[in-house]
Amino acid sequence: MSKNRLEAFSDGVIAIIITIMVLDIKVPHGNGFAALRPLIPVFLSYVLSFVFVGVYWNNHHHMLHTTTQVSGAILWANLHLLFWLSLVPFVTGWMGENHFAQASVSLYGLALLMSAIAYTCLQRAIIAQQGPGSLLARAVGNDIKGKLSILLYIVAIPSAFLSSWIAGGLYVLVAVMWLAPDRRIERTQVEQNHDEP
Amino acid sequence: MSKNRLEAFSDGVIAIIITIMVLDIKVPHGNGFAALRPLIPVFLSYVLSFVFVGVYWNNHHHMLHTTTQVSGAILWANLHLLFWLSLVPFVTGWMGENHFAQASVSLYGLALLMSAIAYTCLQRAIIAQQGPGSLLARAVGNDIKGKLSILLYIVAIPSAFLSSWIAGGLYVLVAVMWLAPDRRIERTQVEQNHDEP
Amino acid sequence: MSKNRLEAFSDGVIAIIITIMVLDIKVPHGNGFAALRPLIPVFLSYVLSFVFVGVYWNNHHHMLHTTTQVSGAILWANLHLLFWLSLVPFVTGWMGENHFAQASVSLYGLALLMSAIAYTCLQRAIIAQQGPGSLLARAVGNDIKGKLSILLYIVAIPSAFLSSWIAGGLYVLVAVMWLAPDRRIERTQVEQNHDEP
Amino acid sequence: MSKNRLEAFSDGVIAIIITIMVLDIKVPHGNGFAALRPLIPVFLSYVLSFVFVGVYWNNHHHMLHTTTQVSGAILWANLHLLFWLSLVPFVTGWMGENHFAQASVSLYGLALLMSAIAYTCLQRAIIAQQGPGSLLARAVGNDIKGKLSILLYIVAIPSAFLSSWIAGGLYVLVAVMWLAPDRRIERTQVEQNHDEP
Repeated sequence: MSKNRLEAFSDGVIAIIITIMVLDIKVPHGNGFAALRPLIPVFLSYVLSFVFVGVYWNNHHHMLHTTTQVSGAILWANLHLLFWLSLVPFVTGWMGENHFAQASVSLYGLALLMSAIAYTCLQRAIIAQQGPGSLLARAVGNDIKGKLSILLYIVAIPSAFLSSWIAGGLYVLVAVMWLAPDRRIERTQVEQNHDEP
Repeated sequence: MSKNRLEAFSDGVIAIIITIMVLDIKVPHGNGFAALRPLIPVFLSYVLSFVFVGVYWNNHHHMLHTTTQVSGAILWANLHLLFWLSLVPFVTGWMGENHFAQASVSLYGLALLMSAIAYTCLQRAIIAQQGPGSLLARAVGNDIKGKLSILLYIVAIPSAFLSSWIAGGLYVLVAVMWLAPDRRIERTQVEQNHDEP
Repeated sequence: MSKNRLEAFSDGVIAIIITIMVLDIKVPHGNGFAALRPLIPVFLSYVLSFVFVGVYWNNHHHMLHTTTQVSGAILWANLHLLFWLSLVPFVTGWMGENHFAQASVSLYGLALLMSAIAYTCLQRAIIAQQGPGSLLARAVGNDIKGKLSILLYIVAIPSAFLSSWIAGGLYVLVAVMWLAPDRRIERTQVEQNHDEP
Repeated sequence: MSKNRLEAFSDGVIAIIITIMVLDIKVPHGNGFAALRPLIPVFLSYVLSFVFVGVYWNNHHHMLHTTTQVSGAILWANLHLLFWLSLVPFVTGWMGENHFAQASVSLYGLALLMSAIAYTCLQRAIIAQQGPGSLLARAVGNDIKGKLSILLYIVAIPSAFLSSWIAGGLYVLVAVMWLAPDRRIERTQVEQNHDEP
C-alpha cells in the first residue's frame, strides 16, 4: 500500500482548509478603508490559523517523508488528524467575528489541542509500523516540542476566561516555536547517512 | 490509459467534498458557548458524513490499488460515484439544519444508498475489465458487506418516517461496519503473493 | 517542460469547479420534502453541468494523454479553457435559480460555447507542437463532433429566446453525444501500435 | 527532501484560489440580462485576478522546474507567497463590489505588491540553495521584469487615490507584461544544453 495517495489526499484537504478560511473574511459593503476596520480581528485570526495549518502541512510533509508504507491504522489516524484540522476554519471564523471573545478563543484552543493530539496519534501509528529503531522514532525522540505544545494548549484553554490575551499569546508562542521546520528529521537523516558507511 | 489522473481527480473531488461540508457549520453571531448549541445537530451530521466520505475514500484507495488500467466505462462509473458523493454536503446540511427532521434523515439515506450502488457499479466495471480471476474479484468475493450496507439503507430510508433515531442508528451501524479498512484486499494480496512462489 | 503539473493543476481546478456547483443548491429552511420542490430546477442544472464538466475532464484526460511536452502556448491555452469552465458554476446557478428563464438559458449556452472554442484552441496548440502526423491529429481528424457541438451551441443560444426547452434540449443532445469517452484516441493508439511491428 | 509535495500543495492552493474567486460573482435574482449589469465590475475584477493568479502559477511552474531539492527556507518562502495570493479573492471581491472605488483599487495593488515581493523572496531562497551559477540565477539575471512590476505597483497604489483608472491601467500593464511565460528559463535551459557537449 503506497503512501502517494495518502499524501495527495492530505495535500488536497489541507490546501482547501488553508484557502477556504479566506472566505470568512467577508467582503464589506463600504467604500473606504474604514469599512475594513471591523475585519482586523478576522484578518488576525486568519493569519494565525494560516501559520498553524502551514506548520501542520510542513510537519506532515516531513513525517511522511520518512514513511514508505501505510497501513489501515495510519490511513485512519491521518483522517482523524484531517477531521480536527477541518474544524480550524470554523473556530477561526467564530473567533474573528466575535473579536476574540473569551469563549471563542477557548474553543479555538480546543481545536488546536485536538489537532495536536491527533498528530501525536498519527506519529505513533507510523512509528508502530516502522519499529522503534526507525528514522522517525529517532528524530522524534521524546518529542519535547509536541508535549510542550499540548501542555500550552491545556493551559491556554481555561486561561482564555481570565483574558483572551493570555490564551492568544500562548497560541502565538506555540506557532513561533513550530515556525522552524522540524529539523530533527533532516538532522537524523544526515546522521543515519553517516552511520551507513 | 493510466489510472494516475483518475486517482488524482477523485482525490481532489473527495477532498473538496469532505472539506466544504464544514462551510455548512455557519459561524454563529453570539459570543458565548450557548450560541453553539443550535449547531450540535449540524456538527453531528458533519461527523457522520466525514466518516462516510472517509470510508469511501479509503475503499476507493484500496480498490484502485488493484487496478492498473482504466477504460472509458471505469472513468464514467467513477464520475457517477463522485456525482452521488457530491450531494452528501447538501443532504448533510439539510439534515443538520432541520435537527434530524424525518424527511431530511430519509433523504440523507437516499444519498448514501445511491453512493453505495454507484460504488458497486464501479467495482463491477473494474472486475469486468480485470476478469473473474482478478485480485479484486477474489477480494470482494460475494461482497456481503456491500450488499448488507445497501439492504440497511433500504430499510433505513422509510424507517426514518417512524423515527429519525432508527434510521440514524442504522447509518451509524453501517459506518462502524466499514470503519475498518477493507482488509479483504490486503489479505488477498498476501495470499496471492503466497500463490506465486 | 513536463505535463505533470499541467495535468495536476487542471485536475485541481476542474475538481473544484465540479464540486463547488453543489454549494449553489442552497439548503432550504423547511422540514418536509415540499421544501425541496423549488430546488428541482437547481438540481437539474447541476446534473447537466456535472455531465458537461465531466465530459471536459474526460476529454482533457484523453487529449493530454497523447502529449508529452507542453509549451508556453499550451499552458496559456489550457488556462484559457479553465477560465471559461470556471464560469460554469455561475451560469448554472443563475439558470437554476431563475427556473430556466430564457436569458439565463441563453447565457448558459454562451459559457458552453466559449468553453468549446477554448477546447478547440487547446487542441490546435497541442497539434501545432506535435506536428500534423501526430497521434492526436490523426485521432481528431476533421473533428466533426467538436464542430457539430459548436454549431449546436450557436443555434441554441438565440433559440432560448423562442423557448428554453429548445435550447435545453440542444444542450442535452450535445451532452449525450459526448458522454461516450473519445474513443478516437484509444482507437488510433491501437492502430498506431499495429503500425509499429 | 523532494519538491513533489511542494508542487502538489502549491497547485492545490492556487487552483482553489483561482476557482473560489468565482463564488464572489453572486448569482443575481433578476431574470433578464439587465440583472447582470451590476456584475460587470465584479466580472472584470475576476478576469484581471484570474490572469494574475494564472501568471503566478505559470511562473511558479517554471521556477520550480529548475529546482530539485527544497529546504525548510524554501517551504516557508513558498507558504509566504501562498498567503498573499490567498488574499487575492478578498481584494478582488471588494474591488468588484465597490465598482473600482479608490480605496479598493489601492488595496488590490497592495495584495499584488506583497505577492510580488513574496515571489522575489522565494526566488532568492531557491537561488541561495542552488548557488549563483545555477540555471535559475542565470535565467533571472538582474530580474528587470520582477523589479519593474514592483515599481509599477508602488506607483499604482497611491495613484489610485487620484483615479482608479490610472492604477487599474498600471495593473493591466503588469499583467500584459507577464502574460508571456517566462521564456528566460526555457532559453537558459537551451543555452546550458549547448554548454554541456
